[in-house]
Amino acid sequence: MARAAAVKAVSGEMSDASDRMGQILSESARLFATKGYDGTSMRDIAEACGISKSLLYHHFTDKDEIYARIALGSTQRLFEFVEERLPEGGTPPERVRAFMTATGDYFQRYRSNWIASTAAFWSDPELRRHKERMMWRDRYEGLIRRLIQDAINSGDFRPVDVPLTGRLVLSSLNWMHRWYRPEKGLTPAQIADSYYDLIFNGLKAE
Amino acid sequence: MARAAAVKAVSGEMSDASDRMGQILSESARLFATKGYDGTSMRDIAEACGISKSLLYHHFTDKDEIYARIALGSTQRLFEFVEERLPEGGTPPERVRAFMTATGDYFQRYRSNWIASTAAFWSDPELRRHKERMMWRDRYEGLIRRLIQDAINSGDFRPVDVPLTGRLVLSSLNWMHRWYRPEKGLTPAQIADSYYDLIFNGLKAE
Repeated sequence: MARAAAVKAVSGEMSDASDRMGQILSESARLFATKGYDGTSMRDIAEACGISKSLLYHHFTDKDEIYARIALGSTQRLFEFVEERLPEGGTPPERVRAFMTATGDYFQRYRSNWIASTAAFWSDPELRRHKERMMWRDRYEGLIRRLIQDAINSGDFRPVDVPLTGRLVLSSLNWMHRWYRPEKGLTPAQIADSYYDLIFNGLKAE
Repeated sequence: MARAAAVKAVSGEMSDASDRMGQILSESARLFATKGYDGTSMRDIAEACGISKSLLYHHFTDKDEIYARIALGSTQRLFEFVEERLPEGGTPPERVRAFMTATGDYFQRYRSNWIASTAAFWSDPELRRHKERMMWRDRYEGLIRRLIQDAINSGDFRPVDVPLTGRLVLSSLNWMHRWYRPEKGLTPAQIADSYYDLIFNGLKAE
């Protein structure tokens, strides 16, 4: 019991308040996608969530803050989440693998934000916050490239093209939101781990 | 000259008429994404393209036909395009590789439709045409799974998890639209070919 409570406290996002946050973010993303950013009001968002406007304003100062949270919050937090979970004393391949499974864990934990963030990318022709988003995306991509380069330097990986290999890794993880269904099969971290095995060991029969 | 003309004739989409089609589809997708399907009129689309309504109606009967073309046309045509390009006498690994490079070629040739189709996925909460889209996506995914299974049966691939390996292949190809810029570096087919090498041979140093 004590342990379960501690786990719950650590993974703060599982609390009721953040379920609410997740709901606000995904309803907002849906509205931005269908009615456009300009066509969506704070009232619309509150109504879609079935909450009062004052409760909505309790969570967010204005519409731009919601948008910012959808559009870039998730990439920034993804970077920090993954970086914290790389084993310091691990071998370079272990660190590449940890990057992948941590991304899977992040995806599972903040799935509604992740999906909202991807939808925001498509529904925002004016590219609001584009520069900040790209900065965090570049830092996240820079991290996997560095880990791959380390594994080449240590002699664990063959001398592959680092940017392309980084993209292969990110593609496998980023595409998950399009097909993954939480109710069945492997967890996202297990899927990421299997991808690591496929990419590391290859398909070729011995 | 004769050869260039022949190439142009074969790749029909490069003609002026289909440049126009591509423009109509991408402008429509942008409008659907920002104003919603219901909030977008044929007049809006014609204006965004800088053409008359009568020219627009010359290409498309109504808004639903445009939407259908965006939402599912591209998956159906992708399936047919790729299937036609699998070498009949090729070994199973050659056929997996051809699946990947043909998808890269398709992406390069019909890039604006591809992007419009992905945006449509996100901007349509009512999932119009969802069933038909899924049918073509499943056929396309079924094809790569069959090719991977063939390569396992022939002893060329080790006995990997077929659905997961298929997803890794599709993820690498499907994510290209998010980062690929036509003006520099490798072509999409060359990128797909490099991905094939990475996945087939793995990262592990000998």
